[in-house]
Amino acid sequence: MRELKERILKDGQALNEAVLKVDSFINHQVDPNLMENIGKTFADKFADDGVTKVVTIESSGIAPSVFTAKAMNVKLVILKKSTSKILEDNISQTEVASYTKGTEYQLTLNKKYINRNDRVLIIDDFLARGEAAQGAIRLIEAQGAEVVGVGILIEKAFQSGNKALRDKGYTVCSLARIKNLSDGHIEFLED
Amino acid sequence: MRELKERILKDGQALNEAVLKVDSFINHQVDPNLMENIGKTFADKFADDGVTKVVTIESSGIAPSVFTAKAMNVKLVILKKSTSKILEDNISQTEVASYTKGTEYQLTLNKKYINRNDRVLIIDDFLARGEAAQGAIRLIEAQGAEVVGVGILIEKAFQSGNKALRDKGYTVCSLARIKNLSDGHIEFLED
Repeated sequence: MRELKERILKDGQALNEAVLKVDSFINHQVDPNLMENIGKTFADKFADDGVTKVVTIESSGIAPSVFTAKAMNVKLVILKKSTSKILEDNISQTEVASYTKGTEYQLTLNKKYINRNDRVLIIDDFLARGEAAQGAIRLIEAQGAEVVGVGILIEKAFQSGNKALRDKGYTVCSLARIKNLSDGHIEFLED
Repeated sequence: MRELKERILKDGQALNEAVLKVDSFINHQVDPNLMENIGKTFADKFADDGVTKVVTIESSGIAPSVFTAKAMNVKLVILKKSTSKILEDNISQTEVASYTKGTEYQLTLNKKYINRNDRVLIIDDFLARGEAAQGAIRLIEAQGAEVVGVGILIEKAFQSGNKALRDKGYTVCSLARIKNLSDGHIEFLED
């Protein structure tokens, strides 16, 4: 997506070879016009997949995913990051390791919001090792629902997440694929 | 706002006299069409206030506030809930007590996203005792910016938050004001 790549080059910061800071337009300050265009782009790319729900992970995925859900005219389900295990019948949880923070959390879903007839599009801001996306997939598939794709704003293509998801047969659509962040320089993979 | 009140009556659950559960359309599962209408409603109510930024608190406020920012064509700033104090020059923090969870957190802002020329509209999902809103006001005013109003989806009018904010001179606009939640019954204040 050209608009996103241009914005990353203009306002993103390669803090080191693994960290791209985008908190001036995605994570902390948010440009709602860009978020709407991202939502429309995902809606367009997955237009023929019969999507019934969009799912994201709190909290950086919420802004782009709610515009995706709006553009597709379906509900959004926000998976919560809980620090504790919740022992209730209607709650489903799976442990996810956070690569950036070096901690674990319980990704949490109230089962009544995903059912076996759902066709789910997962949206998240970053894809690195894919731990969060795979946790979301586990929760969704445990409900008997189908994951039709994973939409990512920024993929760190030098990490293993994309391959791990594709190897398991999932469609991954990344709007910007970063090849290299060395020396403060941001380099994209060719489309 | 009639659409929100009708939805609360249809899909909200008064768990006890203090807790209204709205996780089927606001907090966990999100109805993006309702969020867009809420955003347009706030944009309309604060149309003459020269708003330059919308500010919300992660994570339940993000969906309605990003549509508000979109409708007003300004940026959204998401205040983060940090568990620790961050000692960096560009970071501003203030302690907030969470009424629902019985814990405290550091409400966190990167100072570069609010400046003294900003006229800020704060948007949040719930107003109870107003601790989070007052924390947001402290961070915004410490930057020399002006808070032009506080927009709330659901106000627990039987708690002290609205009065505390109005007593300090702030404009509060609540789209649904709950008078009473006793006996599983949801009663609104008259407009």
